[in-house]
Amino acid sequence: MSNYPTLKQIQATKERLGSLIVETPAHPWRDLQLSELIGHNTEVFVKLELLQVTGTFKPRGALNVMLNLNKNQLKRGVTTVSAGNHAIATAYASKALGTSAKVVMPKNANPLRMQMAQDLGAEIDLADGPHNAFARVQQIELEEGRTFIHPFEGPLTLQGTGTAGLEFSKQVPKLDSMVLPIGGGGLCGGFAAALKQIWPEIKIYGVEPEGANSMYQSFQHGKAITLDRIDTIADSLAPPKAEPYTLSVCRQFVDEIVLVSDNQLKEAMRSLFFGMKLAVEPAGAASTAGLMGPLKEKNRGQRVGIIVCGANIDIDDFHYIVSNVG
Amino acid sequence: MSNYPTLKQIQATKERLGSLIVETPAHPWRDLQLSELIGHNTEVFVKLELLQVTGTFKPRGALNVMLNLNKNQLKRGVTTVSAGNHAIATAYASKALGTSAKVVMPKNANPLRMQMAQDLGAEIDLADGPHNAFARVQQIELEEGRTFIHPFEGPLTLQGTGTAGLEFSKQVPKLDSMVLPIGGGGLCGGFAAALKQIWPEIKIYGVEPEGANSMYQSFQHGKAITLDRIDTIADSLAPPKAEPYTLSVCRQFVDEIVLVSDNQLKEAMRSLFFGMKLAVEPAGAASTAGLMGPLKEKNRGQRVGIIVCGANIDIDDFHYIVSNVG
Repeated sequence: MSNYPTLKQIQATKERLGSLIVETPAHPWRDLQLSELIGHNTEVFVKLELLQVTGTFKPRGALNVMLNLNKNQLKRGVTTVSAGNHAIATAYASKALGTSAKVVMPKNANPLRMQMAQDLGAEIDLADGPHNAFARVQQIELEEGRTFIHPFEGPLTLQGTGTAGLEFSKQVPKLDSMVLPIGGGGLCGGFAAALKQIWPEIKIYGVEPEGANSMYQSFQHGKAITLDRIDTIADSLAPPKAEPYTLSVCRQFVDEIVLVSDNQLKEAMRSLFFGMKLAVEPAGAASTAGLMGPLKEKNRGQRVGIIVCGANIDIDDFHYIVSNVG
Repeated sequence: MSNYPTLKQIQATKERLGSLIVETPAHPWRDLQLSELIGHNTEVFVKLELLQVTGTFKPRGALNVMLNLNKNQLKRGVTTVSAGNHAIATAYASKALGTSAKVVMPKNANPLRMQMAQDLGAEIDLADGPHNAFARVQQIELEEGRTFIHPFEGPLTLQGTGTAGLEFSKQVPKLDSMVLPIGGGGLCGGFAAALKQIWPEIKIYGVEPEGANSMYQSFQHGKAITLDRIDTIADSLAPPKAEPYTLSVCRQFVDEIVLVSDNQLKEAMRSLFFGMKLAVEPAGAASTAGLMGPLKEKNRGQRVGIIVCGANIDIDDFHYIVSNVG
C-alpha cells in the first residue's frame, strides 16, 4: 500500500462520495484591486470550497471515513473532536448515513458552529480545552463503542480532501503553483497530493498562522510537534499538534510552508469581501493572505491557484474582525 | 428587426464580449436551513453573478452598447446616470475600451460604489436626485458629445444581459421556473428572453421592491410608469421610471411580478450570508427574497433558478442592514 493518497484512490473516492458532496466552482479572480496588491500579471484562480455542503471542505474527509465503516460500526455511531467545522461535517455525514454523532468541542468554540452541528443532530460534549478534548473523545470511544473520526489524520481523510484537488485540476488551466491553508494538514495534504500527481512541476505552498505553527515547526524538526500555546484568530487552523501520517504526506507534496499574522488574515478577509463578495472566517482567508503577503514575489507573473476553504462565521464576528485591522 | 433580443443576437453578443466579462458559476443551493424555508423538495440553482467583473451583471450590457459605437463616438467618450453599479460598469467598460466616462450619480448614492467608479477612472458628477440626474446627463450629451449609455433601456443592453441567461441554461438542468430581480428591467428582460426562447415552458417571475414598484405598476397599466416616490433599501432596483423597449420585452417574457418588503430583503440577505456565505447588497438578495416569500408555494417541488446579481456594499452597511431585521 502506498504511503500517500494515489490518484486512483482519489478518483474512486470522488465516485464514492457522489451527490453527498457538491462540486464547488472555480473562478478567476478578476478584481482590479487584488491585481494591484499581487501584481498585474499574476493570474489567480479561486476554488470556492466555502460553497461546499456545511460551508467547508470538511465533509469530503469525514464522509469518506464513514463510508468505509462496516455496518456494525456505522450503527454504533461516531465521535470526534473539533473547534467547529469538522463537528458540523461529522454531524452532516452522520445524518446523511443514518447514524448518530457525539462531538467534543472546546468550551470556547464558536457558538455559530456549535449551533450548526446541533441543528444537524449531533450531541455536543463540551471540554475545557483542546488537549482535554482529545482525552474526552477517547473515553467516549471506549465507553460507547463509537468510532473516532479524526479531523485531519489518516489515508481516508486525505483521499477525501484530495477530491477537491482533483476537481480543481479539471476546472482551471495548468497551474504554476497552488497556495493552500495548512493547520492539521488534512486539506493541504490531500489537495497537494492530487495536484502534484497530475502536474508534477507545480509548486505547492502551505500557509499557516504564526500563532499556531505546528506544521511549520514539524517540517523544521522532521517530526510531529505538539504546541504549548496557541494564539491566532484562525481557530479552524489551530490544532494542538501535528499527526504522523498527514505530516508525512505534507512533507512529500508541499514545497514550503509560510506563516501569516492575524493582521494579514484580516486584510485578506477584507480583500475577499470587496474583491469576491465573500464573507469568510479567518482560516478561509489564509490562502489569500499567503498570496498577498509572503508568497507575493515568488508568484509574480505566475498562474496561481488559491482556495477559500470555509466560511462559518457569524455576522457580528465577521464585522468585528474586519473592522479591527491593526 | 425583432422587437426582442433573439437567441442568435444573444449568442453573438456572448462571443463579442469575450474575455471582457467572466462566465460566472452556477451552484446548487444545498443549505439545509434554506430547504426548511422553501420546502425540502424544491431544487434551487443559483447564478453567482456577483462574481462578475465589477461585482454585478452590469458590464454585460454596458460593454455591449459601447462595443457597438463607432470609432468617433467611442473617442468622444460616454456618460450615464446611475445609483452606482451601472456607473462602475460604465467606468470599467470605458477603461477596457480605452475611452473616458463621465457619470452622473445622485448625491445620496452609496459611497463605496462612487469610490469604485472613481477608482476605475470615471469622472463623477453629483446630482440632487434621480430626476435631476437624467436632466444633467442630457446636458452632458449635448455639451460634450458623449454618448449616453442607458442603465437598462435598449436592445443592445438586453442582448448583453441575455448572455447571463444563455450561460445559465448551459450550467443547470432544465428549469421549471426562474426568479429574477426587476427594477429597470434590464437584467430581467434579457435573461428572461434568453431562457424562454431556450425553454418555452419555463415560468419567469420578476421580484420588485414594494417601495419602488415601477415595473409592477407598468405591467398593471400596460405602459411605462414614472414613480412619484421611492422608498426601499434596494437602491440598485429603484429607477424613477420604466422605459418602453425594456418594458415591452419584460411583458413578453415575464409571467408575473411579485413584490417584496425591505424586511423580506433583509431576511434574504441573512439567508444568503449563512447559507451561501455571500455578503450582498439588498438588490442582490431580491431573487432569494421572492423565492422565500411570495413565490414559495408556487415553486414547491419545482426546479428553480435564482440569481445573486450584485453585491457592492460596504462592511458597515451590510452589518447594519442585516442586524436590523424588523
